[in-house]
Amino acid sequence: MYRTNTCGELRIDSVGATVTLAGWVQRVRKMGAMTFVDLRDRYGITQIVFNVEVDSRLCEAANHLGREWVIQVTGTVAERTAKNPNLPTGDIEIIASELNVLNSALTPPFTIEEDTDGGDDLRMRYRYLDLRRPNVRHNLELRHRMAIAVRDYLDREGFLEIETPMLVGSTPEGARDFVVPSRMNPGQFYALPQSPQTLKQLLMVSGMDRYFQIVKCFRDEDLRADRQPEFTQIDCEMSFVEQDDVINLFEGMAKHLFKTIRGIEIKEAFPRMTWADAMKYYGSDKPDTRFGMTFVELDGVLKGHGFSVFDSAAYIGGICAPGCATYTRKQLDQLTEFVKRPQIGAKGMVYARVEADGNVKSSVDKFYTQETLQEMAKAMDAKPGDLILILSGDDVMKTRRQLCELRLEMGRQLGLRDKDKFSCLWVVDFPMFEWSEEEGRLMAMHHPFTHPKDEDIPMLDTDPAAVRADAYDMVINGVEVGGGSIRIHDSELQAKMFEILGFTPERAQEQFGFLMNAFKFGAPPHGGLAYGLDRWVSLFAGLDSIRDCIAFPKNNSGRDVMLDAPAPLEQSQLDELQLKLDVKND
Amino acid sequence: MYRTNTCGELRIDSVGATVTLAGWVQRVRKMGAMTFVDLRDRYGITQIVFNVEVDSRLCEAANHLGREWVIQVTGTVAERTAKNPNLPTGDIEIIASELNVLNSALTPPFTIEEDTDGGDDLRMRYRYLDLRRPNVRHNLELRHRMAIAVRDYLDREGFLEIETPMLVGSTPEGARDFVVPSRMNPGQFYALPQSPQTLKQLLMVSGMDRYFQIVKCFRDEDLRADRQPEFTQIDCEMSFVEQDDVINLFEGMAKHLFKTIRGIEIKEAFPRMTWADAMKYYGSDKPDTRFGMTFVELDGVLKGHGFSVFDSAAYIGGICAPGCATYTRKQLDQLTEFVKRPQIGAKGMVYARVEADGNVKSSVDKFYTQETLQEMAKAMDAKPGDLILILSGDDVMKTRRQLCELRLEMGRQLGLRDKDKFSCLWVVDFPMFEWSEEEGRLMAMHHPFTHPKDEDIPMLDTDPAAVRADAYDMVINGVEVGGGSIRIHDSELQAKMFEILGFTPERAQEQFGFLMNAFKFGAPPHGGLAYGLDRWVSLFAGLDSIRDCIAFPKNNSGRDVMLDAPAPLEQSQLDELQLKLDVKND
Repeated sequence: MYRTNTCGELRIDSVGATVTLAGWVQRVRKMGAMTFVDLRDRYGITQIVFNVEVDSRLCEAANHLGREWVIQVTGTVAERTAKNPNLPTGDIEIIASELNVLNSALTPPFTIEEDTDGGDDLRMRYRYLDLRRPNVRHNLELRHRMAIAVRDYLDREGFLEIETPMLVGSTPEGARDFVVPSRMNPGQFYALPQSPQTLKQLLMVSGMDRYFQIVKCFRDEDLRADRQPEFTQIDCEMSFVEQDDVINLFEGMAKHLFKTIRGIEIKEAFPRMTWADAMKYYGSDKPDTRFGMTFVELDGVLKGHGFSVFDSAAYIGGICAPGCATYTRKQLDQLTEFVKRPQIGAKGMVYARVEADGNVKSSVDKFYTQETLQEMAKAMDAKPGDLILILSGDDVMKTRRQLCELRLEMGRQLGLRDKDKFSCLWVVDFPMFEWSEEEGRLMAMHHPFTHPKDEDIPMLDTDPAAVRADAYDMVINGVEVGGGSIRIHDSELQAKMFEILGFTPERAQEQFGFLMNAFKFGAPPHGGLAYGLDRWVSLFAGLDSIRDCIAFPKNNSGRDVMLDAPAPLEQSQLDELQLKLDVKND
Repeated sequence: MYRTNTCGELRIDSVGATVTLAGWVQRVRKMGAMTFVDLRDRYGITQIVFNVEVDSRLCEAANHLGREWVIQVTGTVAERTAKNPNLPTGDIEIIASELNVLNSALTPPFTIEEDTDGGDDLRMRYRYLDLRRPNVRHNLELRHRMAIAVRDYLDREGFLEIETPMLVGSTPEGARDFVVPSRMNPGQFYALPQSPQTLKQLLMVSGMDRYFQIVKCFRDEDLRADRQPEFTQIDCEMSFVEQDDVINLFEGMAKHLFKTIRGIEIKEAFPRMTWADAMKYYGSDKPDTRFGMTFVELDGVLKGHGFSVFDSAAYIGGICAPGCATYTRKQLDQLTEFVKRPQIGAKGMVYARVEADGNVKSSVDKFYTQETLQEMAKAMDAKPGDLILILSGDDVMKTRRQLCELRLEMGRQLGLRDKDKFSCLWVVDFPMFEWSEEEGRLMAMHHPFTHPKDEDIPMLDTDPAAVRADAYDMVINGVEVGGGSIRIHDSELQAKMFEILGFTPERAQEQFGFLMNAFKFGAPPHGGLAYGLDRWVSLFAGLDSIRDCIAFPKNNSGRDVMLDAPAPLEQSQLDELQLKLDVKND
């Protein structure tokens, strides 16, 4: 061992001891006859002192140390005269008697500090240096502790962690698969799992009763800030359960995580909101409930007064921003620009200030009497000083989503989206299907294995679009941290589901025959849930992107810029796989 | 919840309680007015009683239940008149008052019992039924508990579990990679990691100090019984350590596993054997040390007596099988056939019996005097009643490996390879390189990142084949359960290593530049080890193959016969990836 102690553990009670430390040089300060070196490792920083009067050669060597050099120092622990209360080791320092340079270092391309001067690209290229920054390291430490807390909880609840294969079959239903050519089976491919969904259902058929796995999943999608081509799922499944059993158990896990990781005790049950209500009041299936400003539908009040935009709208909805009547014209114009951005796509925004005297002044005053405006303010429960923001449109759901963005922006502006405040809820009663314009057919909103609500099953034949599912999402602060459903365990109902989704019986059999056949051998009722580990960690770490809680993330083009992957193969590798590139130059 | 209790938990103290159980019908027995159903779940079996005199309709329904149907039963816990001491629930039974069939079942293609009548192929095709067999399920439960014990130990020792990416770059050095075409980067490929070797080294450069991961690794090799294309590694790395530090820590982990999983307390340190001794005395770098029969080299005794086979041999070695002088001619012929099998490849076998009177009778008596044979018996430490088996050949290492197979076979025949006895050791001082006939160059025996022994570094220039490495394997019962090394942390030494391995500086830079560059920014001395989780589990479960401790294994052609993967892709998937099949019909 190159050390007797870490750089984070020595305290005043070790004074007088001879110790050996090893680590990285954080900085070197020469002050007269003394040279101070801050030595850093994962556990902390300890100050090393070299004195030219005691050992001039050693001190000279210390003066030549550079940032990030790796050294080993032996010396005596001494009490500091000037203590540093900000450092756990700040009461002591090491009077060096030996110095051994283990490795020198080039000057790092950015500073190794919490606030670094390195941009995103540079940090990712030198991720191994970026990970030396304490805040990035803390995210990985947090991730480690969260995985332990998850396993503790689930093991205690009788779940078995069972590894499912990474090389599975491709199922074109759903997102795009990453595929892996098989050399031993030329012309054939494995797929990397988008989730172990069907395998965990087979484990229930096998009687494993309670399964979980913290597992890598893969989706070949165009990437966004909170998506990575590979991500980590806490994947769970249980037998002989109904929706409430799953919800209770995993609400328990969420509370366990809040308590062990953040020290927050949540006693009350998480609220449950139907999907229909979430859309109606928040315009989102993952509402941020840290703050109010819920939607009020204003069709009844504002239609039929000659304002053609509203008169022809399928939906008029408003939010009331408390205390924002003071917003300037410029601020309001910026909000209008915000909702008109292509990503949001609203045509415009109507606003109304409730003035101190109760009068309502709106941007559409010429169409409405004060009486109608008062009626609107009343519907909105707006008080003097409040600001009402209204969007309308000819597509109800689209307009709601636009209003959702506006609400979140107002929440941000008003400081209502505090990262240290947590608001948890379950969204339930999701629709079974959603219509895909692209495919021209109904698609499963969760996945084709989701169980419809028993009372809605008759509607599968008459009005499938109205059927609700035994599906549930857990939402915290507007982030979907997990979701799941009760599954179909009956091969006939499963076959009917594939029929509604437009599968021929042959194609259903070809792609999912292994599952439907398994159901014929005694499948228990079962259901489950999957949490996104990356999302939980970034939520608890207060990160805006999941990227910084991943050791080696990929960029938006799916590249690892540090490893420079992906990369071309050698021709011999392609030959062995019996593959040819067919890259179009465009 | 479909149940109040599991099928494994009710005892005599619950008599009188009303309970609901759910599970699979193990069997139905009709005995007069009574019908007995054994109800099974993961936790056990409970007997359910239906009485035609109490409720004839219910009893009739029970009579129609088939094997593996899934049912829910409500009833009262009663004390059994005829108790079953072999069953934890054997003191009680449930007098049924309600029966609910949750799912029927086709007759399974093999019996769901410890000793099944299903062959390997059938069991794999219906793996979800195979997993219902208690012995297969126990292997997965064992695996779960072992993973927990590993994480407990490593977390306590300050290791952080850090996930490394699955989509990395391809490195043609070493075994063959599985590759993944990138749609977003046409013509380019990711590789699935053969191990996170370079990434864990980068984590050491990043100062993570102690890393581990239980992680899937991938190798596209032609498969054998103890190999799978995907396998699970307990991957570890530590900074500021020397060989002894790593060995001590992971010997501690092995002892922790023996204690928590098998209840075996190992107090003494594991023996260490040099690679040279392992080859000399056991003909293997993973010797089975549960029994003796170590090799004795007989060149000095048996050469120069006119037996041309021996006289021209580069190696003559024997083992002494105690008490086997009684082996018949037929048994000895079978042993000769055994060593002549193409997988072993010996040309023949010489034997010698030490008779009760001390006389030695050999198969080559016409070439040797009794005096020479006595000298041989003495060298072998053979006693009256023992059997000496001798192989010779013109390639020392090849002959040793043949003799190793013979020794293991004799160990098997003599019952010396008891699965409940464990003999652990470290094999150390591996050679740095081995000569590859195929490649016509030196190859790294472990991998190119292994640190040579400090005292052997000068030989890198003069006699690289003689250089030993700071590399070590843990061997238990002839199985290599893990191995590792101290790594190179100096970019110049690493570059020299690539040079010896025949890399041009350009190719070394292209393939491993990211690592050699990282070393320039302050790499600490580091080393590590990887254990094979599959091997540990099968060792503790007493399995001959790792397959039965894997939930969904692949067969020898790399196929998952249950999922029928790999399989052809749809043309649209190939088009999106800009790939063409180039399958040769041969």
